[in-house]
Amino acid sequence: MTVPVPPYVPDPHRDRYAVRTAGMTASEIRALFSVAGRPEVVSLAGGMPNLAALPLGTLSAQVARIIAEDGLTALQYASAHGLPLLREQICDVMALEGITAHPDDVVVTVGSQMGLDLVTRLFCDPGDVVVAEGPSYVGALGSFAAYQAQVVHVAMDEHGMVPQELRAALREAANAGQRVKLLYTIPNFHNPSGVTLAAGRRAEIVEICRAYDVLVVEDNPYGLLGFDGRTHPALRSLDPVNVVYLGSFSKTFAPGLRVGWVLAPRAVREKLVLAMESATLCPPTLNQMIVSRYLATHDWQGRISVFREDYRERRDAMLAALERYMPPGCTWTVPDGGFYVWVTVPEGVDTKAMLPRAVAARVAYASGSGFYADKSGGRRLRLSYCYPTPERIREGVRRLAAVLESELSR
Amino acid sequence: MTVPVPPYVPDPHRDRYAVRTAGMTASEIRALFSVAGRPEVVSLAGGMPNLAALPLGTLSAQVARIIAEDGLTALQYASAHGLPLLREQICDVMALEGITAHPDDVVVTVGSQMGLDLVTRLFCDPGDVVVAEGPSYVGALGSFAAYQAQVVHVAMDEHGMVPQELRAALREAANAGQRVKLLYTIPNFHNPSGVTLAAGRRAEIVEICRAYDVLVVEDNPYGLLGFDGRTHPALRSLDPVNVVYLGSFSKTFAPGLRVGWVLAPRAVREKLVLAMESATLCPPTLNQMIVSRYLATHDWQGRISVFREDYRERRDAMLAALERYMPPGCTWTVPDGGFYVWVTVPEGVDTKAMLPRAVAARVAYASGSGFYADKSGGRRLRLSYCYPTPERIREGVRRLAAVLESELSR
Repeated sequence: MTVPVPPYVPDPHRDRYAVRTAGMTASEIRALFSVAGRPEVVSLAGGMPNLAALPLGTLSAQVARIIAEDGLTALQYASAHGLPLLREQICDVMALEGITAHPDDVVVTVGSQMGLDLVTRLFCDPGDVVVAEGPSYVGALGSFAAYQAQVVHVAMDEHGMVPQELRAALREAANAGQRVKLLYTIPNFHNPSGVTLAAGRRAEIVEICRAYDVLVVEDNPYGLLGFDGRTHPALRSLDPVNVVYLGSFSKTFAPGLRVGWVLAPRAVREKLVLAMESATLCPPTLNQMIVSRYLATHDWQGRISVFREDYRERRDAMLAALERYMPPGCTWTVPDGGFYVWVTVPEGVDTKAMLPRAVAARVAYASGSGFYADKSGGRRLRLSYCYPTPERIREGVRRLAAVLESELSR
Repeated sequence: MTVPVPPYVPDPHRDRYAVRTAGMTASEIRALFSVAGRPEVVSLAGGMPNLAALPLGTLSAQVARIIAEDGLTALQYASAHGLPLLREQICDVMALEGITAHPDDVVVTVGSQMGLDLVTRLFCDPGDVVVAEGPSYVGALGSFAAYQAQVVHVAMDEHGMVPQELRAALREAANAGQRVKLLYTIPNFHNPSGVTLAAGRRAEIVEICRAYDVLVVEDNPYGLLGFDGRTHPALRSLDPVNVVYLGSFSKTFAPGLRVGWVLAPRAVREKLVLAMESATLCPPTLNQMIVSRYLATHDWQGRISVFREDYRERRDAMLAALERYMPPGCTWTVPDGGFYVWVTVPEGVDTKAMLPRAVAARVAYASGSGFYADKSGGRRLRLSYCYPTPERIREGVRRLAAVLESELSR
């Protein structure tokens, strides 16, 4: 007795979804990924790191050894907390930004995106408020939406989040009876804006959050990619109790391994390990061993210098092309590190509406509205210089400028 | 200006957690993992597969080639959906259990635990009911708790879930005005009970769920590990519209790679990809390529036969030892595949209370209460025969029997 296959009907499950599922829609960035894959399009849209500097031969031999010699460990389940040696090494990495931490307080995650998702899971009930820079990382907005948290944006200037604006937003939320749970911030080489939080503002922002009883979530994937080779003191280094720190090897080593981490105050860390278990049992063991071996045996800081030089050359190419080609009335940020330039276009242009015409002209970018929970940002767009070659970047900006010219002459 | 480190206080964040976080407590199984690591303890508690049959030399060479030749792909971000070739191969794996599926409807996840977590995320609002076998998989109960779903257990007998009991539970829930969203079931070589859903019950259970408008979540990590080499028709093969199927390479290849999948009806699959993005951006690329290469170039079905033989030998050792050593009044299930035997002990014994005494006697098991949302099951315990050698299994059961004898003579 088999049940026959029923005729196709549009989503028979539509009345069954959780409330949170209604908020899940494909991001504009994601829709772009397929376009970006076409070779004739210069994609300035994605955030894929340029991995060409990785020592593939050496890595290949090392991974072979891990499997041949420790395969029964590498291919087996491990703890949800993460491998102890890797957690120690992660503390050494964080020390570069002034963080003193115990390996017990590090939880290895499947990319820092998972860290962000699980921290949100631990803290946010539906309707709780998360304060974040405006604009903010599109993947973070996705996680907040998945937990039905409400996002309040705080304005930035060229020195990062404006402390007075943060204070005003928290005061307003308190007056409105809203429960603000988290400040989500990317202090260094911000995605998408490219700006860095000024040194003088860091302690102030940490203090404001303490005063308003708001936990700080510091997301720092790009911190070691400053073009002058200097690092900025992490917010976590200023307040070990009220800051949860998210780190990642995706921009300094290899995103395809999906190894990130959370450094959390002890009690939060314990809950995070439980959340990891229910989310995925444990992070992939092999991947943790690969990262650990890489950190132990490579001049990984030297390799990051190579990445930095590479990205600086691309940033320079992009800034020069913007100067040369962009029509009057366009402005842009000047990043000191990381992957992104944030462009403001003249009034009257809608970057989301313009995108299909840009793609027809063989250039792609990320339109600004994806980076705001309220879908504002219609006059902004994000350009990534991390992946294409300098020549492609120049050609992409030239094409984009031509599309903008034609848009302005409509 | 730095903020001084404040004095330690017990969890300063205790008033900030989401409501769901209150339900997160360390599972009894997890507490056991550290004990199980001590070499003098025979652990019959964990569910770690025995990987000794894996061809580590060949695997090592293959992974080396993947990184040397395709490293820039393997170490880079990929789509949240999963690699197309792997999704095709997964359809071939599922065909062994009678499933006809399109690769587009497969979503690769970081272990099937993540699939379960994300399916729960898509469907369950707080208070929604999930119906599951009693007992049920402890990791599933953890995911349901994380989404504040309520679990209603349905009794099993030696032929698996009892259809009349399922119907009664659904009727009762409907009468009580409860919204039952999911039936979560492990039809083959059930964890923890070891039993398999009888062929004659499969279509009936699928039809009951249709009638009551409940989505079936079929979790099938052990399906290819039947000791007679036969497979059972998947519930998904009986109803492609109302069954979401969870699969895994953790028991047939390597858990440390964390590669699982979900096969879902088209509309659900689209939402699942979005949920994957917000949970972890994408599953690790390298790991997917390793599994894909393994499936393409190894006699992986032959290797599963080796696993099967290995587990059958251990099951036989366990059943023989139970017969020989266990005190009168104990009963146990006889699994035809998978990893587990489910033991009922005489009245008066509490398996959770007994556990520390068992560990002192150098044997560990999983006490029954962890497998029930209501923490019943005090007279049950789960024994795993997957990992220890037959001699260790015999010795472990002998020790356990002695502990039980002493418990009964108290």
